[in-house]
Amino acid sequence: MDKAALKTAFTERLPRFVEEWKEFLRHKSISTDPAYDGDCRACAEWLRLHLEHMGFRSELLETPGKPVVYAEIAGEKSSPTIVFYGHYDVQPVDPVEEWRSPPFEPELRDGKMWARGAEDNKGQVFYFLKAVETLLDMRALKCGLKIFLEGEEECSSKGISAAMSGWRDKLKGDVLMVCDTGSMSIDIPTITMGLRGIVHLTVSVGGLHKDLHSGVHGGVVKNPALEMARLLASLHNPDGSIAVKGFYDEVRAPSSEDRNLANDGPFPKNYEEIVGAPPNGGEAGYSAPERRGFRPTIEINGIHSGYGGPGSKTIIPSFAIAKISSRLVGGQDPSAAMKLIEEHLKAHAPAGLKIDFPERGIGGPALLLSSASPTVVRAAKVLKDIFAREPAYTWEGASIPVVSSLAALAGAEPILVGFGLEEDNIHAPNESFSLRQFEQGFLYASMFLSSF
Amino acid sequence: MDKAALKTAFTERLPRFVEEWKEFLRHKSISTDPAYDGDCRACAEWLRLHLEHMGFRSELLETPGKPVVYAEIAGEKSSPTIVFYGHYDVQPVDPVEEWRSPPFEPELRDGKMWARGAEDNKGQVFYFLKAVETLLDMRALKCGLKIFLEGEEECSSKGISAAMSGWRDKLKGDVLMVCDTGSMSIDIPTITMGLRGIVHLTVSVGGLHKDLHSGVHGGVVKNPALEMARLLASLHNPDGSIAVKGFYDEVRAPSSEDRNLANDGPFPKNYEEIVGAPPNGGEAGYSAPERRGFRPTIEINGIHSGYGGPGSKTIIPSFAIAKISSRLVGGQDPSAAMKLIEEHLKAHAPAGLKIDFPERGIGGPALLLSSASPTVVRAAKVLKDIFAREPAYTWEGASIPVVSSLAALAGAEPILVGFGLEEDNIHAPNESFSLRQFEQGFLYASMFLSSF
Repeated sequence: MDKAALKTAFTERLPRFVEEWKEFLRHKSISTDPAYDGDCRACAEWLRLHLEHMGFRSELLETPGKPVVYAEIAGEKSSPTIVFYGHYDVQPVDPVEEWRSPPFEPELRDGKMWARGAEDNKGQVFYFLKAVETLLDMRALKCGLKIFLEGEEECSSKGISAAMSGWRDKLKGDVLMVCDTGSMSIDIPTITMGLRGIVHLTVSVGGLHKDLHSGVHGGVVKNPALEMARLLASLHNPDGSIAVKGFYDEVRAPSSEDRNLANDGPFPKNYEEIVGAPPNGGEAGYSAPERRGFRPTIEINGIHSGYGGPGSKTIIPSFAIAKISSRLVGGQDPSAAMKLIEEHLKAHAPAGLKIDFPERGIGGPALLLSSASPTVVRAAKVLKDIFAREPAYTWEGASIPVVSSLAALAGAEPILVGFGLEEDNIHAPNESFSLRQFEQGFLYASMFLSSF
Repeated sequence: MDKAALKTAFTERLPRFVEEWKEFLRHKSISTDPAYDGDCRACAEWLRLHLEHMGFRSELLETPGKPVVYAEIAGEKSSPTIVFYGHYDVQPVDPVEEWRSPPFEPELRDGKMWARGAEDNKGQVFYFLKAVETLLDMRALKCGLKIFLEGEEECSSKGISAAMSGWRDKLKGDVLMVCDTGSMSIDIPTITMGLRGIVHLTVSVGGLHKDLHSGVHGGVVKNPALEMARLLASLHNPDGSIAVKGFYDEVRAPSSEDRNLANDGPFPKNYEEIVGAPPNGGEAGYSAPERRGFRPTIEINGIHSGYGGPGSKTIIPSFAIAKISSRLVGGQDPSAAMKLIEEHLKAHAPAGLKIDFPERGIGGPALLLSSASPTVVRAAKVLKDIFAREPAYTWEGASIPVVSSLAALAGAEPILVGFGLEEDNIHAPNESFSLRQFEQGFLYASMFLSSF
């Protein structure tokens, strides 16, 4: 569809969009707090009806957690099917006294919508829905559409993760479209090209019946706190690379073009000022954006053993516990990576002490796209049409395990474009999403969908 | 003095000794709980008067904490001066419901005195006092005596440690006698030949403004938990020896005879059953008794960073903190050892993160005696006379910093012989000390003192 025609259509419809968007935002769909379970379901039902009115066949898919709103509409024969994933749940609102207007009483002020969820993800879901609606009005949608809106993204996507393997047919599609990411700036559209996968485990080292006197037993018995430190230290080589045998074997290297794009992508120049330490972690031989986007990590998320109060307590702690997580990149199988880490820890375990793995979790695999992929090329062309400039490409270090899993189940190529900005204050008081961002998203979604 | 004569003297006086000992034990001199401050002072005053009646010039030496009972009696010209150190304070009595008779209502039952402090240290102090009294009665004490009884041994000896440097003249002596240790068994008298010194410090690694998302920042910034593990792991070589440069330089090696004596000394055969892990810690190339007695350690007493709850929390913790203590052996200067450890940690600190030492403590130097020392030879001869067998020699791994410091200030050679047994339940409910142990102590103290 033509950009000018869509802009006109958007402007004509905007007052109604805003009123409907506010209705959506008034639902207190905080997923992490069971007190809001009813609000979450009401929000899901509101969405289902909204989609039904738009012409979709819709239903609530039940999960062990909150329901997933599902809606589908058939496309023209031989047209591809686009699967859309988003979420209707929101973060809690504390500290509520810091909000300039109440979080669930949406207010349009200074060209921005202010409310919890204004951006994450209700705002970005809603421009997508309004783009679809407009294309249907204009009879400009040829592709089929399957929409999945979950209600637990802000609290680990447990329900959808448990249920999705039963939806293989429903999920089947060609492209998985996600609008839950951000732009480098209001003027620079951004394609998220990668997400890392994740596995995590808890390891304990111990076996002593109780804390021991460090004088009587020091130098006699192995110290679990010290041995845990040595065990964890064994996970990396002196140059910061991972020392776990075979860990890099399946890692897919990016093309030199993608490597260059990653290095040109968004990375804060004042990183040290923001974070408190320089971006000098990880492996030698890679830039910070390359390490974040293309290289796996093994991180310690916590370690606890023995005394931690003031002064000294001269004990040999009876045990030590560590929380380990590993971010995976394209090519790595999560279960295989987990097994390699466990095998390494067992092989390096201190003789005489007991090692145990009380918890293990497979989050999901990585997503790794190439700038040469047809869907990325298509999205880039649409963004260039809208912004009159090339988009930025970013390979993120974080994980959205459900997206990787959905893409795998759907057999679809994922495309992640969103219009969030740092100033939107997602997960914080005074969340907002400007009408300008809303329009950018509307144009992207409608032009991308109508391009098929 | 002749053993038979002393045995007779003991038996004649025992009924009176028991009554006086009970008076001593009735004082609730629990030092760690301020509620008993009055009881501690009453106990000190009772002791001072008791010593005054025995013919000593006595006084209470004030400290920033509880008073030290001091008493002195001049010896014959050219006779040496023996300095005695003991303590009148006791451990708390919880759980009090597990006592078969109330902890501060001493009871003689089955040939044993049952009460808090029956052994530690009131029982062992009291046989010494009664030995001195008996020798004075029999005009058999030629040496001079200076007695220091402190009231905070069970809660870190703060008062005496702060005050003792002002008592240099008072402390001056030839031998520092301490009866606060145990025997290998009721039949095997034991000389404690060494105590390790101790220093401790707290180290923190951090600098991040807050916990970071381990996906967004993993591989980009250094992880304080991981870097702490690597830093602590750097303290030791793969063979378990300490990797801190120069740490062993001043370590005094024991004679091969002492090494043999240590290996023949008390060490539990069922160590793994008791402790939960085998005695395979510390440095390669030394037996467990050698490592405990003659080799320094650097131990981790605690390490804390980031998340420790159930499941996973994918953060890069903003900081990590570790509690480190080091047991020192003969020859090592505590301040110098502390400096070497700090320098090592600074030299191995992760670039870009902040390292800090919020707490430091110098406990004191080690005590290291040789079986060839004249005082040890003298004590061994006395013990052989009493028990008709050679004593056992034990180099302990623990520290009694005040003993090392007192010996250094007094310019005196320490001698540590005591008659405690595992079954005495010191620091636990139902503490006891048998009349047989009391008599052993009485004979040792009187024969040792009268040998000068």
